[in-house]
Amino acid sequence: MIRSTQNKNVKEWKKLHSKKGRNQSNSFLIEGYHLIEEAYSTEQNIKELILQEGIENPGWLQDDFVSYVSESVFNEITQTDTPQGIAAVVAKQSIATKDKNYVLLLDAIQDPGNLGTMIRTADAAGFSKIILGEGTVDLYNDKVIRATQGSIFHIAIEQGSLTSVIPSLKEQGFSIWGTTLKRAQNYANLSAEGKIALLLGNEGRGVSQKLLELADQLVKIPIYGRAESLNVGIAAGILMYHLRK
Amino acid sequence: MIRSTQNKNVKEWKKLHSKKGRNQSNSFLIEGYHLIEEAYSTEQNIKELILQEGIENPGWLQDDFVSYVSESVFNEITQTDTPQGIAAVVAKQSIATKDKNYVLLLDAIQDPGNLGTMIRTADAAGFSKIILGEGTVDLYNDKVIRATQGSIFHIAIEQGSLTSVIPSLKEQGFSIWGTTLKRAQNYANLSAEGKIALLLGNEGRGVSQKLLELADQLVKIPIYGRAESLNVGIAAGILMYHLRK
Repeated sequence: MIRSTQNKNVKEWKKLHSKKGRNQSNSFLIEGYHLIEEAYSTEQNIKELILQEGIENPGWLQDDFVSYVSESVFNEITQTDTPQGIAAVVAKQSIATKDKNYVLLLDAIQDPGNLGTMIRTADAAGFSKIILGEGTVDLYNDKVIRATQGSIFHIAIEQGSLTSVIPSLKEQGFSIWGTTLKRAQNYANLSAEGKIALLLGNEGRGVSQKLLELADQLVKIPIYGRAESLNVGIAAGILMYHLRK
Repeated sequence: MIRSTQNKNVKEWKKLHSKKGRNQSNSFLIEGYHLIEEAYSTEQNIKELILQEGIENPGWLQDDFVSYVSESVFNEITQTDTPQGIAAVVAKQSIATKDKNYVLLLDAIQDPGNLGTMIRTADAAGFSKIILGEGTVDLYNDKVIRATQGSIFHIAIEQGSLTSVIPSLKEQGFSIWGTTLKRAQNYANLSAEGKIALLLGNEGRGVSQKLLELADQLVKIPIYGRAESLNVGIAAGILMYHLRK
């Protein structure tokens, strides 16, 4: 039982709160029964399980890989408001998906909740891959992971420079749909045929101009009321499901 | 210039952080240039403007209604991580909308971000009214208001018991679409004609059974991948825009 917040392991776990620490160890922290169960059932490489005293080992890992900690130590590690007393260290690994018709391209999404929700929606809509362009919030940020509700373990997610990814997708036969409010067509009038890559951008400025210039089709979602715009996660949801109809 | 956090006005403003305080004074607090400008341009009743020292009065209100406060006092009042040094007390008032074809009914939505985003999307989709059923998070919660991005001032939002609201909407010719995963039809196969009220529910349990029994049509959004469900705000966005096509 680890009772000291100065313990070496505790310090290592807390390093996973930062992107730098996650990059150095090539692993990340997840919390709560639902996420850890998803990691287990999708055969992620769970390196360690951290249990608060009083919490039983659910049997996913042999005791060698389980650390028991006091409540005060767990409170140092947790990043949630209502901790469940169970956390795990998971190795980053790439996930393969079969269907290759729909790809989501994200340009500099900043809000962790937006990114996590878009991953969850892309999973639900049966998209095969998500590519995170430069300036996007770290995929392994705790808020991102929580908002994915486990979808981070279901769908291929890569990082890349969209200026080189887009030409390569075009060569593979993808049509690139760039979202913008200017000189764009109403999505509802466009039919989705063949392979499509959907490009959405930053909460403030939208998709950058240089990426829009690479798109085959500019699309918009009309605003019928007085809102200035839609939340990017909502726009992504409407468009991804439009493509699947 | 108010420099003491013990000042009577400061205490009154801080009461607006709680639902109880907002109900007692029938007013709420908003922050930041964008929201206050929206409140002004939509002719809300702005009772007071609170400016941090160094921030100029943008001229929306006469000086009689403006309080200047020190930075430390503003930090007591603010509920944002990156305060802009400008806040306002706004009287609650009902907003009238013209078009009466589309209503959003929300059963016990708990997350402020979800509620705020749904209000913003309903505004964008040209819905005429939102009715918040029992158990829904307080409309005037600061996180809700922030997520609406000003749409709280654009669309009629009422509170009511959905068990009595739904029969009354039916009498007015509305068809009630209840969202559920069980025994429901794929929304994409349903055409939207006439007046429709869309019913969405709590993040954990969905729409309550007793309300689903009052619906004319049960609808679902199909899951093509391995996600268990969609975020309720995303589901609302997909369905609201489906109705508008």
